[in-house]
Amino acid sequence: MSNDFSDIRALTFDVFGTVVDWRSSVIRELEVIATNIHVEIDAEEFADEWRSGYPRIMQEVRDGLRPWDTIDVLHRVILEELIPRYGLERLSEDERTSLNRVWHRLIPWPDSVEGLMKLKTKYVIATLSNGNVALLVDMAKHAAHVDPSGNGLPWDLVFSAELFGHFKPAPEVYLGAARLLDLAPDQVMMVATHAGDLRAAASIGFRTAYVDRPIEWGISRAAAEKRSGDEFDIEVDDFLELAAMLGIE
Amino acid sequence: MSNDFSDIRALTFDVFGTVVDWRSSVIRELEVIATNIHVEIDAEEFADEWRSGYPRIMQEVRDGLRPWDTIDVLHRVILEELIPRYGLERLSEDERTSLNRVWHRLIPWPDSVEGLMKLKTKYVIATLSNGNVALLVDMAKHAAHVDPSGNGLPWDLVFSAELFGHFKPAPEVYLGAARLLDLAPDQVMMVATHAGDLRAAASIGFRTAYVDRPIEWGISRAAAEKRSGDEFDIEVDDFLELAAMLGIE
Repeated sequence: MSNDFSDIRALTFDVFGTVVDWRSSVIRELEVIATNIHVEIDAEEFADEWRSGYPRIMQEVRDGLRPWDTIDVLHRVILEELIPRYGLERLSEDERTSLNRVWHRLIPWPDSVEGLMKLKTKYVIATLSNGNVALLVDMAKHAAHVDPSGNGLPWDLVFSAELFGHFKPAPEVYLGAARLLDLAPDQVMMVATHAGDLRAAASIGFRTAYVDRPIEWGISRAAAEKRSGDEFDIEVDDFLELAAMLGIE
Repeated sequence: MSNDFSDIRALTFDVFGTVVDWRSSVIRELEVIATNIHVEIDAEEFADEWRSGYPRIMQEVRDGLRPWDTIDVLHRVILEELIPRYGLERLSEDERTSLNRVWHRLIPWPDSVEGLMKLKTKYVIATLSNGNVALLVDMAKHAAHVDPSGNGLPWDLVFSAELFGHFKPAPEVYLGAARLLDLAPDQVMMVATHAGDLRAAASIGFRTAYVDRPIEWGISRAAAEKRSGDEFDIEVDDFLELAAMLGIE
């Protein structure tokens, strides 16, 4: 864990949970759509199950049980499993398509846009997400409508598992990003709120920044204590603190 | 040639010549570096030969005479051919590396940043260039230092031949961009100052916008007359006119 960050040229960001608050965004849209068709659902539970289905289904892809596909398609597969269980069969095809695209409209954490604007002045900032490219660019542009600054997520580059044909935490994803950046792995810092993502990045030589997002899974499941403080190069509470740690005013 | 542009969701841009004035940028840096080592060169001719070498060497890649490589590498190959012819052998390895990266520092045409900012409010805007990803992102960020607005080139996405393993005008490049955008080809408009690029895009279903850049190859070779006006969906003089044609104030 070196404190010398002078070689770093680019920051790559996990997106779901790290940059955007997927849970509040999905719950809100589920509540609206269920109310519209006069069905009562536990939107928190639905959102959590939808999100939890995603590592499971990605694992089926990795194991060869399911062909490679975009997260849009995988989200839809999970949605179709959940719809009958929550009594939402009345949703039309158009409504299902629209609901599935809620993942394109996730809302940034309050510090995300301002922090990214600061970090962008010194570094190349890129997504490095299992989300597909179209999802990530829609999300970036949608943020312009919901963030008080009026800025979207100001990515320099949108890197996605889709470009590499592998999902994180496969090493191909991190190595592919470094190759496209024309940088050595230790010139790139992975930023994420998930330790597994950071460990995979570190294993191929990336620097690492852990960002604490304790309410990613809701207030009731907020992490009871902070991380221990020495596994990653940087551990911070938000992107503004990250910018400060990297010497940006 | 339909005038109905309501289906268009994304604009993809050729970069060298269309967005940036490669010739002035390269001439200026060549003049500085030659003066520094006390050599007189015809910087205009050098710049033109450097640029002209690039379609030739890309053709060698297409013909299988040379393995796939990035434009950075191909630019360096041509540079090494030109150095002895112009008496610049005194340039050190570091100076050659830096000079070769002039293509990362090309300066936008005066309307480019303002026009892209407008277009970005309504469309996804993406590069679609034979330049490699690292070159394109460096160029976008460098523009923040040279454009009066202080904005860089505000790309939503950086698409490069490097992502697809083919150079334009191969159809794989345009089809690959549409696939990553999750759009049908006719929802995408290619913007370029080179008719061949637009014809290749049109052949797989893209809409097309021709932007006149008459001094791309210098004042003395400025095109004597404008284009005839009916081959492409839109023909304009700059990006501000393009924005107006697409209904953006």
